[in-house]
Amino acid sequence: MKTKSTVQAIRWNGESLFLLDQRLLPNAVVEIELGDAISVAAAIRDMVVRGAPAIGVAAAYGGALSVAQHLGSANWRAAVEAELQVLEQARPTAVNLAWAVAQVREQIDLNADDPLHAVRNLAEQIHADDVAANRRMGELGAALIEQRCQVLTHCNAGALATAGYGTALGVIRSAYAAGKIERVFADETRPWLQGSRLTAWELLQDDIPVTLIADGAATWAMRQGEIRWVIVGADRVAANGDVANKIGTYSVAVSARHHGVRFMVAAPTSTIDVNCPNGDAIPIEQRDAEELFGLAGVRHAAPGAHAWNPVFDVTPAALVDALVTEKGVIMNPDSAQIAALLASA
Amino acid sequence: MKTKSTVQAIRWNGESLFLLDQRLLPNAVVEIELGDAISVAAAIRDMVVRGAPAIGVAAAYGGALSVAQHLGSANWRAAVEAELQVLEQARPTAVNLAWAVAQVREQIDLNADDPLHAVRNLAEQIHADDVAANRRMGELGAALIEQRCQVLTHCNAGALATAGYGTALGVIRSAYAAGKIERVFADETRPWLQGSRLTAWELLQDDIPVTLIADGAATWAMRQGEIRWVIVGADRVAANGDVANKIGTYSVAVSARHHGVRFMVAAPTSTIDVNCPNGDAIPIEQRDAEELFGLAGVRHAAPGAHAWNPVFDVTPAALVDALVTEKGVIMNPDSAQIAALLASA
Repeated sequence: MKTKSTVQAIRWNGESLFLLDQRLLPNAVVEIELGDAISVAAAIRDMVVRGAPAIGVAAAYGGALSVAQHLGSANWRAAVEAELQVLEQARPTAVNLAWAVAQVREQIDLNADDPLHAVRNLAEQIHADDVAANRRMGELGAALIEQRCQVLTHCNAGALATAGYGTALGVIRSAYAAGKIERVFADETRPWLQGSRLTAWELLQDDIPVTLIADGAATWAMRQGEIRWVIVGADRVAANGDVANKIGTYSVAVSARHHGVRFMVAAPTSTIDVNCPNGDAIPIEQRDAEELFGLAGVRHAAPGAHAWNPVFDVTPAALVDALVTEKGVIMNPDSAQIAALLASA
Repeated sequence: MKTKSTVQAIRWNGESLFLLDQRLLPNAVVEIELGDAISVAAAIRDMVVRGAPAIGVAAAYGGALSVAQHLGSANWRAAVEAELQVLEQARPTAVNLAWAVAQVREQIDLNADDPLHAVRNLAEQIHADDVAANRRMGELGAALIEQRCQVLTHCNAGALATAGYGTALGVIRSAYAAGKIERVFADETRPWLQGSRLTAWELLQDDIPVTLIADGAATWAMRQGEIRWVIVGADRVAANGDVANKIGTYSVAVSARHHGVRFMVAAPTSTIDVNCPNGDAIPIEQRDAEELFGLAGVRHAAPGAHAWNPVFDVTPAALVDALVTEKGVIMNPDSAQIAALLASA
């Protein structure tokens, strides 16, 4: 099985963090070097790096950079804590950010003798675990696809959104390699255009056939009858299986159900937040209306217009046919099955 | 009742046709003067003017310009016929174009003594009738809204898409004036952004509160519970009530049904095509993939990407709660009710 993924969003050389600047893709492929936690937090906030698993990994390296910078100074622990809070608050919806920062804090507290070594190891481990989780989800998700078909994805849950290989695009990579996918429809995903800028680019790097469509065309594409699965990632999964993901995901889920198209969410268990009983408890980030008013510096909207720009939405568990994690697959997810999965080895 | 509509897309001074260049809105308000039919056909094809009723009116004036230019030359009738065919084929989906051109042809054939006078009168009558139809639809559609609420519209079915006042936005203008609408959500409507460029601008001119959203956010907006009606126009209505309209309309209709939001189509009877038994018979225009790859000359999509760019879709009659025409309202439209309406005085 071909399992390559050419694209690498995050690289670490032991001293610095290197992030592919996703704001510039696909017009320019530029890696930027970051040497301190505050720069990492800014890169997360400004979407140099995005995607729930990727920002978790970046935040862990941010923690390592913070310890490296302050260790040795008198109040190093307080200085690091302040930076961890900046990292944790860089964006609100993806739970992986808080999850990674909590682990950094724990490693510092458990390893008073050599916290730097411990936190660097942790970040590298989170990085490696994420790639391994994606490959495992790829296998598990691909196994759910019974016959060769077309699939649809929304936003970018690919190598660019993770430490490598991707969640939804990991499933798509594995299923394509197994001959189960004929073509991928990619929603362009306004306002940030992750579909046309990132997903189309990432799939083209790996020679996977991709057709770009306007977000409004997804339902009409399903009506044509060739799409059998929608496959998306998640920014946070509540304890009952409700899924927060990029705005527009809920629309695709409603349309999928209407057409008998199945809906798969691929997300590592680090994305499941047992502290959120359901989707209502997930904070939904609102971003600047300017993101809707223009594109690449060219403004097109009517001056004076008001806009509503929630950048995530919540798909109720009842519309999710399969939740694929690195620990296993849950069909028709609910609280009991999710709790059992998390309790398993 | 306040029924003003500030914006005028089409103006005629007896000699020339003046079109507001909708490709430049809202950044520039520029009217262009057209003196011959071929220029009018090009303006329709290139979307200087768009919207089914508006392109019908423009085509009728195009017919008048053609007769004015060629009348007196030896083969004037053949020269006019050639231009009528160019007009008729400028865009495929809106039936108003063929409908208007057929009427021009008929008037020429019936008035051998003074065809120019007849066709000019016809065009002016189609223009005036469209405004009157929109005002009547405004009253009828507004009467369906039982309580003050929020509504959602897709694309632009406003004064800019008609001879004035608008179809869907005519209903919205009348309902807002009657105190029944608190706020209008406008989908930005990719790829051509008629929502953010035209609908938001047009409603702002008339001080009607409008909130712009990404197309993918419409379903999530319905989930918030304040939207009671979706109100859209149509490019062609089949004999059974299936509705072709801007790509994304079908998605909104599916989401509306899922949330118990009612779905209203406002379209004059000139948009009903009894020769199309159902939506499968309606030709769906595919436009250049470049419309999806960039915006305002700035390309953002991955080089080499493939795209599917149908610019209309078909909403089955079963998802339409109300079809509002100038001749009356049909609830849950079907072939029998539509035939009866068209047969009525």
